[in-house]
Amino acid sequence: MNLASLNTPAAIVDVDVMTRNIQRMQTRMSAHGVTFRPHVKTTKCEHVVRAQLAAGAQGITVSTLKEAEQFFAAGIDDIVYAVAMAPSKLEQALQLLRRGCRLKIITDSVHSAQAIVAFGNAHAATFEVWIEVDVDGHRSGIAPDDDLLLDVGRILHEGKMKLGGVLAHAGSSYDYSTSAELERIAEQERAGCVHAAQRLRAAGLPCDTVSIGSTPTALAARHLEGVTEVRAGVYVFFDLVMHNVGVCGIDEIALSVLTTVIGHQESKGWAIVDAGWMAMSRDRGTQRQKQDFGYGLVCTEDGVPVEGFVMSAANQEHGIVSQVGEPDTSIAERFPVGTRLRILPNHACATGAQHPEYHALSRDGGVSTWPRFYGW
Amino acid sequence: MNLASLNTPAAIVDVDVMTRNIQRMQTRMSAHGVTFRPHVKTTKCEHVVRAQLAAGAQGITVSTLKEAEQFFAAGIDDIVYAVAMAPSKLEQALQLLRRGCRLKIITDSVHSAQAIVAFGNAHAATFEVWIEVDVDGHRSGIAPDDDLLLDVGRILHEGKMKLGGVLAHAGSSYDYSTSAELERIAEQERAGCVHAAQRLRAAGLPCDTVSIGSTPTALAARHLEGVTEVRAGVYVFFDLVMHNVGVCGIDEIALSVLTTVIGHQESKGWAIVDAGWMAMSRDRGTQRQKQDFGYGLVCTEDGVPVEGFVMSAANQEHGIVSQVGEPDTSIAERFPVGTRLRILPNHACATGAQHPEYHALSRDGGVSTWPRFYGW
Repeated sequence: MNLASLNTPAAIVDVDVMTRNIQRMQTRMSAHGVTFRPHVKTTKCEHVVRAQLAAGAQGITVSTLKEAEQFFAAGIDDIVYAVAMAPSKLEQALQLLRRGCRLKIITDSVHSAQAIVAFGNAHAATFEVWIEVDVDGHRSGIAPDDDLLLDVGRILHEGKMKLGGVLAHAGSSYDYSTSAELERIAEQERAGCVHAAQRLRAAGLPCDTVSIGSTPTALAARHLEGVTEVRAGVYVFFDLVMHNVGVCGIDEIALSVLTTVIGHQESKGWAIVDAGWMAMSRDRGTQRQKQDFGYGLVCTEDGVPVEGFVMSAANQEHGIVSQVGEPDTSIAERFPVGTRLRILPNHACATGAQHPEYHALSRDGGVSTWPRFYGW
Repeated sequence: MNLASLNTPAAIVDVDVMTRNIQRMQTRMSAHGVTFRPHVKTTKCEHVVRAQLAAGAQGITVSTLKEAEQFFAAGIDDIVYAVAMAPSKLEQALQLLRRGCRLKIITDSVHSAQAIVAFGNAHAATFEVWIEVDVDGHRSGIAPDDDLLLDVGRILHEGKMKLGGVLAHAGSSYDYSTSAELERIAEQERAGCVHAAQRLRAAGLPCDTVSIGSTPTALAARHLEGVTEVRAGVYVFFDLVMHNVGVCGIDEIALSVLTTVIGHQESKGWAIVDAGWMAMSRDRGTQRQKQDFGYGLVCTEDGVPVEGFVMSAANQEHGIVSQVGEPDTSIAERFPVGTRLRILPNHACATGAQHPEYHALSRDGGVSTWPRFYGW
């Protein structure tokens, strides 16, 4: 198989670019003296995760228990489920534990901590639980200085669960675009999470692991004192949002969607392609960033960006490719019907999720199929 | 199975509501004296499509050849592939034809028409081809008065393909919200497509089928003189975008996402739920409409809207539920951890696509699994 033999639309992974992205992150984390635990929600693909582990990653992070089940079935047993535990999901987590999975779950509330303790004790199971810490106000977690942190820690510890650590994710790092801002938010993430760990320890509670991370903060941090591990997901492919944040070049984006030109509206300067939002996702993450790429940046079939052309609009299976600014009314000559293009996505996690498989493109032009899964 | 036994997040279809939606559309189309050909891209689900056909629909519309293959394998043979034919997909279409599928393909360009003729003749195959007509400038198609219409018609007819008709879709109807506007765009769609058919016939070309449709125009049209069939997709479930357009009530939305409250940020008035954009999709279609519902409207587990509460933000597997306007700082009492909610989606086609199956909820509270497929 090669690119020319693929049906369109198709999700293409440039294996060389991906490999460099994996190396870049792993090298950086090793230099900081922390372990690295990739977030597999980005790809949900065993081929990619094997490459991350082969490069030195230790364990994985998941966003659903289905991801935990799928990767545990593939032989990976060190797993953090990094979404606050719903009491109704404890049975599913217990099954993983009983089959030998070293699953870690997280919580940020008394209610959930109590439910974990009650369920664990009722089933003679010791869950390893990390407390989610809020370092930037963007979503979940307990503020490092909030006494709720100690309350939740005590409930878990005294309830005979294994209080394994603290976990933070500075999701607001996606909102910045300068290295000074990124360094600041990275330090805020580090310092807040380390502070939470110190408070737990000072209260006589165990806290071995200090886990932080997001792709921008992982790449921006000057030092990671007190941190034991870092998590990140999208770095493996990068995307246009990360480019706007400033942590990757366009040529470091490993994921693209191969598409075919199926028609034109010449007077408007539109080429119509067979990748719409079903293939790109509805993610418009660059809309409020410094450069709006519409639904994606247009490249030639061999991956070279076509300066000034984006997917400016999308319906379910139709994309509209056009020039930013002035319409190119000779677009039908530029991109005749049948032309194949590759579109770089705004958000690799969202675009990948639309596809049952990646088509992994090697340096020699060969293409292999890498299945990915979805659902819950 | 019932709602309480489902893992979350889960896509729920209220079967009673869906059945009424199907009846409403079919009754209206029958009264207009046209046949109805549902667009199955909305659901990609055999259970739903069987219900549409049982109610009187004749044939189906698809947005991908995979949909054609899947539904043909399920015994449905009258299929329109309503995306302009890419020459590279002709082999796939030929295989369907050879297996007995009454596939109709569409084109709006000389290039594609010539490719169809060349490929058909080379393989001794007669494709039935409809010409796509542009009635509102929103995407693809040939304007009814453009002589390109006749050029493409002649290429197909003289090239010994079956010129079967014309097809239009007034996608811009989604941009309106009053019955006067909807009636106007519906009439524009009807008149433009009928005019194109008349021009082909006047030029001595065959044009049996005049196919138009979108959910808003199908429901708004006063008469459908000259039209032979109507297509629509999202009417089967409806959604918040259609509610803002004005063609359905909130209580006519058949699709929702069941989710569980997993935490809070009380001072901000946030409840965190386990449905994020992966479960809702990234579609923000109500953002530029008269009422912005964020990522969806919050309902109780039994489907009753909670006035003033929406999913105001979403990450991959986290949704933030909050009150519009003033934060509800007692949200943790209103929706404690473990509370199950149902979120009505902005766009049923996009939300459904995120789920491997629908959970069909009957009047008696029983739930069945209705698989759906994805990919290309």
